[in-house]
Amino acid sequence: MPAPWVFIIIGSDSDAKAMDAACAALDEFGVAYEMIVASAHRSPERAKQAIANAENNGAAVFIAAAGMAAHLPGVVASFTTKPVIGVPLASGSLQGLDSLYAIVQMPPGIPVATVAIGGARNAGILAVQILATSDEALAAKLRESRVTMAAAVAEKSKNVERSTR
Amino acid sequence: MPAPWVFIIIGSDSDAKAMDAACAALDEFGVAYEMIVASAHRSPERAKQAIANAENNGAAVFIAAAGMAAHLPGVVASFTTKPVIGVPLASGSLQGLDSLYAIVQMPPGIPVATVAIGGARNAGILAVQILATSDEALAAKLRESRVTMAAAVAEKSKNVERSTR
Amino acid sequence: MPAPWVFIIIGSDSDAKAMDAACAALDEFGVAYEMIVASAHRSPERAKQAIANAENNGAAVFIAAAGMAAHLPGVVASFTTKPVIGVPLASGSLQGLDSLYAIVQMPPGIPVATVAIGGARNAGILAVQILATSDEALAAKLRESRVTMAAAVAEKSKNVERSTR
Amino acid sequence: MPAPWVFIIIGSDSDAKAMDAACAALDEFGVAYEMIVASAHRSPERAKQAIANAENNGAAVFIAAAGMAAHLPGVVASFTTKPVIGVPLASGSLQGLDSLYAIVQMPPGIPVATVAIGGARNAGILAVQILATSDEALAAKLRESRVTMAAAVAEKSKNVERSTR
Amino acid sequence: MPAPWVFIIIGSDSDAKAMDAACAALDEFGVAYEMIVASAHRSPERAKQAIANAENNGAAVFIAAAGMAAHLPGVVASFTTKPVIGVPLASGSLQGLDSLYAIVQMPPGIPVATVAIGGARNAGILAVQILATSDEALAAKLRESRVTMAAAVAEKSKNVERSTR
Amino acid sequence: MPAPWVFIIIGSDSDAKAMDAACAALDEFGVAYEMIVASAHRSPERAKQAIANAENNGAAVFIAAAGMAAHLPGVVASFTTKPVIGVPLASGSLQGLDSLYAIVQMPPGIPVATVAIGGARNAGILAVQILATSDEALAAKLRESRVTMAAAVAEKSKNVERSTR
Amino acid sequence: MPAPWVFIIIGSDSDAKAMDAACAALDEFGVAYEMIVASAHRSPERAKQAIANAENNGAAVFIAAAGMAAHLPGVVASFTTKPVIGVPLASGSLQGLDSLYAIVQMPPGIPVATVAIGGARNAGILAVQILATSDEALAAKLRESRVTMAAAVAEKSKNVERSTR
Amino acid sequence: MPAPWVFIIIGSDSDAKAMDAACAALDEFGVAYEMIVASAHRSPERAKQAIANAENNGAAVFIAAAGMAAHLPGVVASFTTKPVIGVPLASGSLQGLDSLYAIVQMPPGIPVATVAIGGARNAGILAVQILATSDEALAAKLRESRVTMAAAVAEKSKNVERSTR
Repeated sequence: MPAPWVFIIIGSDSDAKAMDAACAALDEFGVAYEMIVASAHRSPERAKQAIANAENNGAAVFIAAAGMAAHLPGVVASFTTKPVIGVPLASGSLQGLDSLYAIVQMPPGIPVATVAIGGARNAGILAVQILATSDEALAAKLRESRVTMAAAVAEKSKNVERSTR
Repeated sequence: MPAPWVFIIIGSDSDAKAMDAACAALDEFGVAYEMIVASAHRSPERAKQAIANAENNGAAVFIAAAGMAAHLPGVVASFTTKPVIGVPLASGSLQGLDSLYAIVQMPPGIPVATVAIGGARNAGILAVQILATSDEALAAKLRESRVTMAAAVAEKSKNVERSTR
Repeated sequence: MPAPWVFIIIGSDSDAKAMDAACAALDEFGVAYEMIVASAHRSPERAKQAIANAENNGAAVFIAAAGMAAHLPGVVASFTTKPVIGVPLASGSLQGLDSLYAIVQMPPGIPVATVAIGGARNAGILAVQILATSDEALAAKLRESRVTMAAAVAEKSKNVERSTR
Repeated sequence: MPAPWVFIIIGSDSDAKAMDAACAALDEFGVAYEMIVASAHRSPERAKQAIANAENNGAAVFIAAAGMAAHLPGVVASFTTKPVIGVPLASGSLQGLDSLYAIVQMPPGIPVATVAIGGARNAGILAVQILATSDEALAAKLRESRVTMAAAVAEKSKNVERSTR
Repeated sequence: MPAPWVFIIIGSDSDAKAMDAACAALDEFGVAYEMIVASAHRSPERAKQAIANAENNGAAVFIAAAGMAAHLPGVVASFTTKPVIGVPLASGSLQGLDSLYAIVQMPPGIPVATVAIGGARNAGILAVQILATSDEALAAKLRESRVTMAAAVAEKSKNVERSTR
Repeated sequence: MPAPWVFIIIGSDSDAKAMDAACAALDEFGVAYEMIVASAHRSPERAKQAIANAENNGAAVFIAAAGMAAHLPGVVASFTTKPVIGVPLASGSLQGLDSLYAIVQMPPGIPVATVAIGGARNAGILAVQILATSDEALAAKLRESRVTMAAAVAEKSKNVERSTR
Repeated sequence: MPAPWVFIIIGSDSDAKAMDAACAALDEFGVAYEMIVASAHRSPERAKQAIANAENNGAAVFIAAAGMAAHLPGVVASFTTKPVIGVPLASGSLQGLDSLYAIVQMPPGIPVATVAIGGARNAGILAVQILATSDEALAAKLRESRVTMAAAVAEKSKNVERSTR
Repeated sequence: MPAPWVFIIIGSDSDAKAMDAACAALDEFGVAYEMIVASAHRSPERAKQAIANAENNGAAVFIAAAGMAAHLPGVVASFTTKPVIGVPLASGSLQGLDSLYAIVQMPPGIPVATVAIGGARNAGILAVQILATSDEALAAKLRESRVTMAAAVAEKSKNVERSTR
């Protein structure tokens, strides 16, 4: 059986750059992924079919990112029972407040696991955490990364520490 | 050819009461309508099919109402090129601010004609105005209703007018 | 009988640029329009007369755009029973939240079909959709444009697709 | 010459109660007023004529109160060069935030002197302060009322003062 | 090996009722769980130890719910690399906007999968979806529940459907 | 008796530029003014004395402008019974929303006539309108300026008008 | 030398009830206090004198609470260099968001230590913490109270704990 | 006994620059401090230990600054009973509104003394004010600094004062 992978769907090609950090996080942990553009509004059929195909081909977690009236994550969630991670993107006047509300305030029955506005890296890490619930090697990598992260904090601190005592 | 009619879709049966005022407005102007429940998230196929059937059967304007991460109006708009009127409903902690943003902030290409939070009556009137662009009898009724409305303001004013001059 | 056309009113000459996308959309669909400046506050008489003239000369849909305490769309709606599309523009500190509220929160009786903050293109498309309710040729163009739109999504996707599977 | 008076316009008869405090303030200072209902949207002609009549008959200050997309104060201000005081009223889901923005964010050229959401009493006092700029007797009453107000604070304080020293 | 289970942590005993819907969802899908109170602020040591114990005893997913400056989900996420689901609760003047921001806006590195304000049921379902990524029987139940959900929409629709065509 | 004049108080010297438009408006109408810096927080005594001196020397209207927790207009209003116009200035992260709330939401008894965020020009015009309640020459200038304003709208319109009819 | 004490100033007698929790906290720790009403706007002189008297009589920390455009804490801070704790109170349509901004967004130079909207108990505890920086007995009581607090969490947890493992 | 000092903790090395103004304020008053980086989420153990060490070594006041879901001040407050000053930093789309809510809305029992978004200088001054409650020399410096501050206002005023009287 092939390893489970992550399917990333973005609402517009202009959102691709904002998702670099999600791809980078998945790369760091050696988790495979695919990313395509499929607008919930301009190409609803394409979105639906891509989700079905991905699920049939072993996609285990979905990440959907969109701005403004960001329906894409909810639409993805309506077509799969796999965990769906939503990334609100900041664009236009409301700077992501609109996409945050449109993603996180899902009605009972169809959850979307929402991360911060522009929180692409955390979307990637959360996908890894979900896959790691049944992959001890991945879980170990996550624990190691926390140790590294804590060490990095201590290391970076040295550059800015001050004392007048 | 049968008269064009209005198709009202609500995201939950609990939203029906909030749409009474839309139905009443359509009744006042003698415009036919149908109303059903079809959740964008819990029953996406049903929603899609209902929209296609309605369009095939002469629905000329759509009204979609929903609360929270209100994707329904946008989903309806993604499946039809008829005018879609969106009604944000207030429910939950954000009191309709979430549904307003999720409905009005549609990306370029797929408009939703948004009315006020809970603005069911105006959704009905706007549907009448749209149909009246090609129905002079209906247009005349709209003009008369404005005269009535202005007279009602003057009449109601009498009950609360005060003067100390 | 001349073809119905769209009357675009903006609150200030500085708003003209923001409405280019509305004009472009109308041009794409071959719908005629006129655009003038008529402030609701600084030139209320001019606004009222322009609306009356336009309606007498066959304007079938109105688009009104304004920023800040954006009363123009509501004022237009108070002087015509034709469908009025409101475009909130972002200007000043509140970045369009003020104009959104001032346009969308119309009281019962006088609707304004509100689009996104800065949503000029969708205002143009919505006007086309309204006219298309009685113009099958226009309706066909709208359906074709959706096919083109969906194809464009698929095409643009290719530029940013990634896969590590 | 008759004494200058204050013209209060409200957008709906349901707003009358909310303006009791404005009337009471004017009564306290012996300033005459008239109050009528004249919706900016449902009865624009009535509003315009009432404003013109009032100005011709010596109205020196206008108070306009409305809820939601509260255009009435701005519309009043567009028809008179007298000072216009705007009172945002809380109604509906946005609880007056919509009316506050729609009243206070007036574009350059046409000011509205905005008071707090539901700030009817302060609207009345502000009108008195404006009239008092040319009425020394009224100005003296205002100064006295401040003394009374300060005394009332001290008096009421006694009921709730606590000390554990 | 015992079945993986869900650990629910709430910031205050007064939050227990709000989490009934999460427990009910887990019960429906036959997923085991434990729920305790452990304030991030008033009992940080207890929280930390409970998280460590739970992880050692097979907890696979964490759900943390809190109101106001809701740090609990983030604190849980800082002590485990398992997926953490955050539920913002509405309490006090800001009605859950504070807890939403405090939970969803996590900095890069430590994700919290955020659901709607008061979205306890979706927290439960999301936990099931995560466990179902490696449990086909659970995945099948989720797919069935969607069929049931869609049927329920159609059934409930009948009670409120209207037609004047 | 010398002509009544307008006293402008700003909370910081960095606010001076933002008030240019108020000064310009007063200059246009030939209304005299003085402007000083007097922080409500950093120099409360100076503020109080300046207000008292100004009132004794014939200041008839006060304009106070400040950003952030903008207490200055309220503090001015607590020391005079003359009309006080408050100008919220945008500075810092909240972009004037903080100063708007801190100025407009005055409690009953002490009104501040609030204009838009950054609405310095309207503050100046409002001051003129207030003085014009007892100065017919000034009132006539205001009426003329409206005619000029309306003409300017028509003139500027020509630069951006478009027609495809 | 008498023990340092806490001076509580509230903007209105109607705010007294909201401050019960502050008094209770001070009582628990045996810290003396006085509470009076002194409006920043309606009685500025009284406020100023009360602050000066309190400081002369050994007040070491000030707590000021107010709603709406809550200037009182900032005004207190402008008249003393003692630490000033501000408590935003929820009243009126904006439910404390206005008072929060008006208290916390103080400009550089004059800090106000702001607690949550309605956070009277924390205002009391913070005052104790400040006094405890130079009072080891008080500091010990604070440490004990934390132990008690943590134990209470564990105790209350028992009433709502659930387990289906 | 060594002089009490202030411990500044920031959530990321990128926050160091934003805290320069806090350090500068402490330097002005001759109050010693240390500053380190210790993320509440990425290095919770480091944060906890640093707090304990600092308290053991005489830290009397804590300042914690963070952006987004800013838990650091609350986490610091959960580990010490010393006064904790929280500085919300603006970063990302919500521009500090998220960090403000996440810091100021602390639940009863564990206060954080919150200053303005980006209010580093006031955090420093507040720390000085707290230490000055038991250090008369420091208290005297604070009083002097107020005199200087007021004089600076008067001095700077001269550069921007205008008069047309």
